[in-house]
Amino acid sequence: MHLRVILPVVGETLIESVRQEATGWASPGTTIDTVSLTRGTASIESEYDEALAAPGILERIAEAKADGVDGVFITCFADPGVHAAREVIDVPVVGGFEPSVLTAMSLGEQVGIITVLPNVLSMNRSLARRYGVQDRIGAMRVVDLPVLGLDDHELLMSRLFEQAHDAVSSGVADVLVLGCTGMIGVAQELRERLAAKGLRVPVLDPTGAAINWLESCVRLGLVPSRTTYMEPPAKERIA
Amino acid sequence: MHLRVILPVVGETLIESVRQEATGWASPGTTIDTVSLTRGTASIESEYDEALAAPGILERIAEAKADGVDGVFITCFADPGVHAAREVIDVPVVGGFEPSVLTAMSLGEQVGIITVLPNVLSMNRSLARRYGVQDRIGAMRVVDLPVLGLDDHELLMSRLFEQAHDAVSSGVADVLVLGCTGMIGVAQELRERLAAKGLRVPVLDPTGAAINWLESCVRLGLVPSRTTYMEPPAKERIA
Amino acid sequence: MHLRVILPVVGETLIESVRQEATGWASPGTTIDTVSLTRGTASIESEYDEALAAPGILERIAEAKADGVDGVFITCFADPGVHAAREVIDVPVVGGFEPSVLTAMSLGEQVGIITVLPNVLSMNRSLARRYGVQDRIGAMRVVDLPVLGLDDHELLMSRLFEQAHDAVSSGVADVLVLGCTGMIGVAQELRERLAAKGLRVPVLDPTGAAINWLESCVRLGLVPSRTTYMEPPAKERIA
Amino acid sequence: MHLRVILPVVGETLIESVRQEATGWASPGTTIDTVSLTRGTASIESEYDEALAAPGILERIAEAKADGVDGVFITCFADPGVHAAREVIDVPVVGGFEPSVLTAMSLGEQVGIITVLPNVLSMNRSLARRYGVQDRIGAMRVVDLPVLGLDDHELLMSRLFEQAHDAVSSGVADVLVLGCTGMIGVAQELRERLAAKGLRVPVLDPTGAAINWLESCVRLGLVPSRTTYMEPPAKERIA
Amino acid sequence: MHLRVILPVVGETLIESVRQEATGWASPGTTIDTVSLTRGTASIESEYDEALAAPGILERIAEAKADGVDGVFITCFADPGVHAAREVIDVPVVGGFEPSVLTAMSLGEQVGIITVLPNVLSMNRSLARRYGVQDRIGAMRVVDLPVLGLDDHELLMSRLFEQAHDAVSSGVADVLVLGCTGMIGVAQELRERLAAKGLRVPVLDPTGAAINWLESCVRLGLVPSRTTYMEPPAKERIA
Amino acid sequence: MHLRVILPVVGETLIESVRQEATGWASPGTTIDTVSLTRGTASIESEYDEALAAPGILERIAEAKADGVDGVFITCFADPGVHAAREVIDVPVVGGFEPSVLTAMSLGEQVGIITVLPNVLSMNRSLARRYGVQDRIGAMRVVDLPVLGLDDHELLMSRLFEQAHDAVSSGVADVLVLGCTGMIGVAQELRERLAAKGLRVPVLDPTGAAINWLESCVRLGLVPSRTTYMEPPAKERIA
Repeated sequence: MHLRVILPVVGETLIESVRQEATGWASPGTTIDTVSLTRGTASIESEYDEALAAPGILERIAEAKADGVDGVFITCFADPGVHAAREVIDVPVVGGFEPSVLTAMSLGEQVGIITVLPNVLSMNRSLARRYGVQDRIGAMRVVDLPVLGLDDHELLMSRLFEQAHDAVSSGVADVLVLGCTGMIGVAQELRERLAAKGLRVPVLDPTGAAINWLESCVRLGLVPSRTTYMEPPAKERIA
Repeated sequence: MHLRVILPVVGETLIESVRQEATGWASPGTTIDTVSLTRGTASIESEYDEALAAPGILERIAEAKADGVDGVFITCFADPGVHAAREVIDVPVVGGFEPSVLTAMSLGEQVGIITVLPNVLSMNRSLARRYGVQDRIGAMRVVDLPVLGLDDHELLMSRLFEQAHDAVSSGVADVLVLGCTGMIGVAQELRERLAAKGLRVPVLDPTGAAINWLESCVRLGLVPSRTTYMEPPAKERIA
Repeated sequence: MHLRVILPVVGETLIESVRQEATGWASPGTTIDTVSLTRGTASIESEYDEALAAPGILERIAEAKADGVDGVFITCFADPGVHAAREVIDVPVVGGFEPSVLTAMSLGEQVGIITVLPNVLSMNRSLARRYGVQDRIGAMRVVDLPVLGLDDHELLMSRLFEQAHDAVSSGVADVLVLGCTGMIGVAQELRERLAAKGLRVPVLDPTGAAINWLESCVRLGLVPSRTTYMEPPAKERIA
Repeated sequence: MHLRVILPVVGETLIESVRQEATGWASPGTTIDTVSLTRGTASIESEYDEALAAPGILERIAEAKADGVDGVFITCFADPGVHAAREVIDVPVVGGFEPSVLTAMSLGEQVGIITVLPNVLSMNRSLARRYGVQDRIGAMRVVDLPVLGLDDHELLMSRLFEQAHDAVSSGVADVLVLGCTGMIGVAQELRERLAAKGLRVPVLDPTGAAINWLESCVRLGLVPSRTTYMEPPAKERIA
Repeated sequence: MHLRVILPVVGETLIESVRQEATGWASPGTTIDTVSLTRGTASIESEYDEALAAPGILERIAEAKADGVDGVFITCFADPGVHAAREVIDVPVVGGFEPSVLTAMSLGEQVGIITVLPNVLSMNRSLARRYGVQDRIGAMRVVDLPVLGLDDHELLMSRLFEQAHDAVSSGVADVLVLGCTGMIGVAQELRERLAAKGLRVPVLDPTGAAINWLESCVRLGLVPSRTTYMEPPAKERIA
Repeated sequence: MHLRVILPVVGETLIESVRQEATGWASPGTTIDTVSLTRGTASIESEYDEALAAPGILERIAEAKADGVDGVFITCFADPGVHAAREVIDVPVVGGFEPSVLTAMSLGEQVGIITVLPNVLSMNRSLARRYGVQDRIGAMRVVDLPVLGLDDHELLMSRLFEQAHDAVSSGVADVLVLGCTGMIGVAQELRERLAAKGLRVPVLDPTGAAINWLESCVRLGLVPSRTTYMEPPAKERIA
């Protein structure tokens, strides 16, 4: 199986680490390659960034289609370009929100999302309603760190733990979702730190959830519905 | 008051008619100018088109900001770029869905939307849930004509009447919203044809609703919330 | 355009100030006159008061119809008599809740309502569900002052600021609605005080929202749906 | 136990039959007396009628309070004056909608309401949302007869059967509620006619449901919550 | 009228006290007998316990059917076996949640449930959504005592009062429901203690609510819908 | 990875075919074994059957725990025993509904479920609400064949196609879920027959969805939340 990870930001510095991270979650036999954008933004922390990234993402979708990949992960929690992409490629496409939140719903009653900045809380609330799962979201919290400031592992862990501990112990979250695909390599540690405090709740890494979601869909032979994601009619398009 | 209408498609042929249409709905003292995009698509009939139009729309938003306009109407029913735009300009910004559907909710119990193609039905359902108003949408119908095929007035009227009559008389719509900003100059006639059949229901033209919504917001001194639409953090952006 | 403001309380002392306030929000060319009730209550702070006011309101609706007005504002946040009125007059009719909350929904994610007394909180929650917008209400707060005790400007401002600051800074309100049409002349000041604390959120005055809503509906040629608001069948009626 | 039935219409011709009907549903030991209004309307088929009836209903509530009754049934499906009444009397008060629909929810998945005229469909939809039970309403139908035209038993039965059979057999109703307290003495017959066609579904008479609801509340010592239904503050009131 | 109370636990020590408690809530003329299970668990505090109790409950349902009882109360708040039972017996069957929460909805806006252990909170949230009443649940609290530890009256009262007072005074509950049928003989005292603090809210005892619910359904001639609760097809069954 | 499939019915005739079917959906390296029940029913077509199967399922869960399996699939669409099982085993447990419907939600707007008999429609509606996904279910249909009558491949296909074609072409389903785990080996054929009619929608086999869901959870290190699925307190239990 050949999956394509689209890192929906400009710049190539993160490509290799994202590829490794995604590959780490994949099954044997799954090949993962990764591309970033030639136009877009350095990170996605607003609907503005999402909008600017969209055409660049769709260029990469066209390439993915030409390359015959089996599935596409647009590695951003806010699912940028995901629905547009599904209209033009006959393979499963996901971002981070859908696979991690839907998976979480099978593990606990109230889903708690811990994301980066207050800037994206409203986007996430909108997504929850868009997907019709708002009644299952118990908490939305932030670590108050920008996407490009997530590499201080101890700081990130300490903020995640603080928010997670508070949400779970106050009874508003039963299963946690890391609300940014840039929160890499912390899910297991967060779960263990919480467990050490007696709070045994699952923690979902959205990259892991997405790669497994795609692998499942591919094995199940599932592609986007063409009554929901109809092919865009032919017309002049100047990107 | 100075409003800017952004026609989120490429090409200049429609600019003047859109300007006249919008101006026709405006109050005395409101100046309306209209721009289209230098990059984007010829019409918007999919999430794919929306995504491609987004950066071009945001360029026009930056110009509108520089020009000091008082409000912006992105003239497409599906509200493309609207939420991104609100993050970067301190004036009210609307598309077609929000002002027309919210206005309709004060006029009747079940809102019926009649749009162009089946392609956009799922987008509209998603928007209704995103805005949290899904329980008030009674019907979504299509005339099955593309945006660029709406100029055959008789054909459009006949399809609109057929769908409207069926939705209202079968008890699933009490107030109608034209689900495409390209359905110009038909709201009143549709209302009259329905009334002639004993179905006295309001019909909302999204352009009219949007222009009036913006004028109201401007008079009320209202601009987007900066806790919902936070300013995007500074970063590298390559559009 | 000729709008009629119905002050749904007995007594004439407030008529002139209400007329001036409403006129202050109106467009040039809009004439506003104001009437109060000959039977009803001194203020509306309960469903009981609403019920007692209803026939008096409907008498004024009959007059408004005879006078050929273009729209009616029943100036109370709880929308008393509004739906009954729509059944018997062919012009737009609003109270305070609908136009202000629906407008607010286009400006921010979570609407916060700050009203007078705990007595009306359940009424407001019921209205939110009735209108199908409950998922967008983030907070309902009170200043704990009766309607007829709102004229101590500093006290009102201080209570409003306290509630508003708490709701916005704790992340449960992004756009504020003043939940009583007697809270006159405070919206802008509240917005400024919040902005001075870094909380840039819109504040809606329900009178302003209502007047603009009516003007918009009149310009758009919109009147209540006759499939929702059917004409009451003829019968004996002893008011 | 002493229950008071308020027939929220003017005229005395129906008082005795309503009293007998209500008494027929009561337990031994329950005394039921019945009053109608001195002002109001001849029947309730609109929000307009409800509004006109409200003060007359509240007069009767004051009498009921003075008389020390144990519970009050305002015998109209649309629950007119019910919430206002709860603010001023310390005994349970119901109309027809709440007790019958809530009871129905324990008997089947989808509640089907069959009411009189199209005029009241939107009121009923609004009530279902107000009470937060809209997801359990599967169908709302009408017999298309006015309240004062329900006495042609065969015509009523035939219309009820037609709507009921259609709703149940098409899979949108599992338990039926008669949506007008004027549909007297038909519940059991309707149930039997449906059962004869193989459709074994319960049929609720709202009068019966209301009388039993009140008796239950009285036995359980339950009265309206004073945090929801707070006592109206003292003030001038001219009814 | 003959009602059967099924105590869905093993052991006979509680039978007589449950019978007396239930009988205390019943009308004159109602006979109540009580049985416990021969297989099941000592108390129900988990979905695991519910699952183990189910076949034992259904054995008792078969007996109840053979005995020709008029209604069945399965005395556990979580409604174990209730829906299964309705499929096989033609009389009304309830547990504790449905009758008490639905009754509470007619008494106040926000229902607050106070139950035993954190273990059952998610079950109760699931039930609220299953029944479609989640928008009316304002609070779920626990006394943090196991079912078999509820007999220390003072401790139970003190924990109930603490939770109830906090929920009502913080504005998230208007009417309280005791969330365990083992909380016997405390509803009235809790109501009085709250009233002494100025919080006049109803408190529902689920046993009382259930017995009255059944009596009402029997008097109304109501049995489970056979389109919702269809008879299980014949097949091999090894219990 | 070692997965255990629990066929929640009595009898051993289906064990081998279920094992083969499940294995066919599994990844290389996954070992699947299958057990049926020693007590329960011959098939599950009612809440009654579910209830009778529960203790037998939980016996098999205890064995699975003792055997150290990595995940458990209880192969019935209605998720019998699933929530109880999660309380007592530290590995992911699913039935058919959750994994297939949640997966479907990432593929199309409106999920259509086609199940066996009308008997289970209300159970499925209840599950959709319990899981909080009811706004995404567009259609529930039946083939009107019992579980044990699904082996006539042509008859099943013809009924499935009829229902699927009608639901998709009438615009109420965009992605289909086979609502019975006994509908084996038909998903792909149904998809192809629909595609041949121009309806390109995904069709989910619940067995395939469940096996992949479990594999994903195992790879992601996810087990049930212990704040939702708390360990049942120790007590006497007589199964």
